[in-house]
Amino acid sequence: MDINIIKEVRQNQPLIHHITNGVVMNFSANGLLSFGGSPIMAHAKEEVEDVSRLADGVLLNIGTLTENQVNSMIIAGQAANEAGVPVVLDPVGAPATKFRSKSMQNILEKVKPSVIKGNAGELAHLIGEEVETKGVESTGKGNEKSIAERVAQTYETTAVVTGKIDVVSDGSETRTNSTGHPLLAKVTGTGCLLGSILTACMAASGTSVTKIHTALEFFGAAAEHAASQDEVQGPGTFSPHFLDALAMDPEQLRRGE
Amino acid sequence: MDINIIKEVRQNQPLIHHITNGVVMNFSANGLLSFGGSPIMAHAKEEVEDVSRLADGVLLNIGTLTENQVNSMIIAGQAANEAGVPVVLDPVGAPATKFRSKSMQNILEKVKPSVIKGNAGELAHLIGEEVETKGVESTGKGNEKSIAERVAQTYETTAVVTGKIDVVSDGSETRTNSTGHPLLAKVTGTGCLLGSILTACMAASGTSVTKIHTALEFFGAAAEHAASQDEVQGPGTFSPHFLDALAMDPEQLRRGE
Amino acid sequence: MDINIIKEVRQNQPLIHHITNGVVMNFSANGLLSFGGSPIMAHAKEEVEDVSRLADGVLLNIGTLTENQVNSMIIAGQAANEAGVPVVLDPVGAPATKFRSKSMQNILEKVKPSVIKGNAGELAHLIGEEVETKGVESTGKGNEKSIAERVAQTYETTAVVTGKIDVVSDGSETRTNSTGHPLLAKVTGTGCLLGSILTACMAASGTSVTKIHTALEFFGAAAEHAASQDEVQGPGTFSPHFLDALAMDPEQLRRGE
Repeated sequence: MDINIIKEVRQNQPLIHHITNGVVMNFSANGLLSFGGSPIMAHAKEEVEDVSRLADGVLLNIGTLTENQVNSMIIAGQAANEAGVPVVLDPVGAPATKFRSKSMQNILEKVKPSVIKGNAGELAHLIGEEVETKGVESTGKGNEKSIAERVAQTYETTAVVTGKIDVVSDGSETRTNSTGHPLLAKVTGTGCLLGSILTACMAASGTSVTKIHTALEFFGAAAEHAASQDEVQGPGTFSPHFLDALAMDPEQLRRGE
Repeated sequence: MDINIIKEVRQNQPLIHHITNGVVMNFSANGLLSFGGSPIMAHAKEEVEDVSRLADGVLLNIGTLTENQVNSMIIAGQAANEAGVPVVLDPVGAPATKFRSKSMQNILEKVKPSVIKGNAGELAHLIGEEVETKGVESTGKGNEKSIAERVAQTYETTAVVTGKIDVVSDGSETRTNSTGHPLLAKVTGTGCLLGSILTACMAASGTSVTKIHTALEFFGAAAEHAASQDEVQGPGTFSPHFLDALAMDPEQLRRGE
Repeated sequence: MDINIIKEVRQNQPLIHHITNGVVMNFSANGLLSFGGSPIMAHAKEEVEDVSRLADGVLLNIGTLTENQVNSMIIAGQAANEAGVPVVLDPVGAPATKFRSKSMQNILEKVKPSVIKGNAGELAHLIGEEVETKGVESTGKGNEKSIAERVAQTYETTAVVTGKIDVVSDGSETRTNSTGHPLLAKVTGTGCLLGSILTACMAASGTSVTKIHTALEFFGAAAEHAASQDEVQGPGTFSPHFLDALAMDPEQLRRGE
């Protein structure tokens, strides 16, 4: 973990423009605020260009996609590309429906993401492969590394495959992360919130792989810390303690305090 | 409570397609995840057919209805009907506006729900009656049984009237449930989340009345358990403990552990 | 604090129609429920007139504005004006984009709000001024009073400028409030929820300045109480305790129990 990246985020409080799904808007905003970023959510085609140009990072998440949102994502993504603002793309459920799959292609033809982040099935889908995601555990030793590397190379981006072991690759350098906790999978939107935090870290200095790896490691360590609290008895009580942990000093978190 | 129904849900983790209101999307997803189901939310007309055919159950909730959502609900409901996937309908606030009332009629002409679930006023409205809901306490001994039975008969469905005492009826068999806690009424979306949990239980084996009765009894018992925790001092602290309780072993819950 | 205002809200449970942003719908509904009001959210143009006429107060919040929402806000606001129902306007981020700025003008030409509520930058924007909001601390001693007074006079309304010290003015009488806690700024939507609570208090008896001042003082005192709890370790655990505190007896809150 490169602690300076997290310190830089907390000092600059980067403004992250979200076009994200309705399920997670509140949780993502709270998690990003707690971590030290500054969330802004806007999806009307009339204003997304203005907001993206103001922002330090743009997150596009297709979790509850509509035709209007696809258009807004393209406008926002192109404005961010022009302004040199990093764009993080989260192709939630891309393999699940033809609409999501086609919309993803459409967005990727017009917008150049700095980071593409998803589970193995979602990222494999972007390179025309199918991964059986139910029952598959991401070990980080096999398929996931290859998927991350090929997505990174195909889209000239940094690819993140999340799972039990997370993989990040820019096509040449590839790293894994094994922090995390099973309760993350019992709270909706933790993966989406990770996207927000990756975007905030992309606004700091350093190489993409280092920034993303730091974000992954911190996020998982915060989950481990929260899950270890006496007050946490299940996913409901985990959630507020996880939000608290996202505000913690990374050195304290690392020492397991 | 038929504990096997809950065990079956937790083993199969049924995928429940929600077209629901924006107020409760996050809470419903978290509650269903905690209980053991697998939520998916999608409302674009371009993809709801695909999602409903993938799903083990479909929940239609009109809490923040728009014209677009009515269309999507009809597409999703018809696809589910064709594929033999159970559909649960929650006519939130149906008597409140002409738009909701007309939309409800429109949906009910085109989609055959397995379950219709609401409070006495909402269900009475579907059979052309008016119930004064402010100040009325549902006793389960009078009007509510009759409303549930007549809704079940009129729409050839299983009807659930929620209240202090809940009633479920398939038109011939009628049962009541008295678990629950007043704090449920101080947290937004608990009734909507109940709809998600009813849908998950409908994906299990057994008769509709047994499955719904089990879901009602478990849901209320989880609320009672949560409310009894020392840490719970009001609706804010009740909510995470209630989510925790939804993940509990039904036998523990019944013994009041 | 005029405790009778809060008692009246809790007795009457005023129905507050929200057209608000997707980030905060759940939190606003829960906070208002806890405080003693009754939230209803509806934004479809086909039903907002019906809902506003039913309601005891209407809250218009432009946090995630769309063209459709602007139309619905005008319909709802005009219906409320005709029916004598108080309208509270929250111009979230009005200076941030041309779309929000123009929409705000459009709404203010057609709807007469009883209260306009926002931070110094948002309210200054409505009278054609610019305030640097990053790094500015609202002291309540300088600029904010002048902004509140001029907004109140320009729009013949009661203006509320929130900040470290809040200011409320009807153009002739001006009062300040200094309750509150820094954790409020680390939880998304606390300002939006304040809008809901102001609207509920507007449904009670008394002058606007007294009602708004009471709401501000109670809201801030509830935050102070929540933040003082041992269980509160950060923004995540603050949030449920704050919701609990909003349900408290104002006399207990004042005595710091």
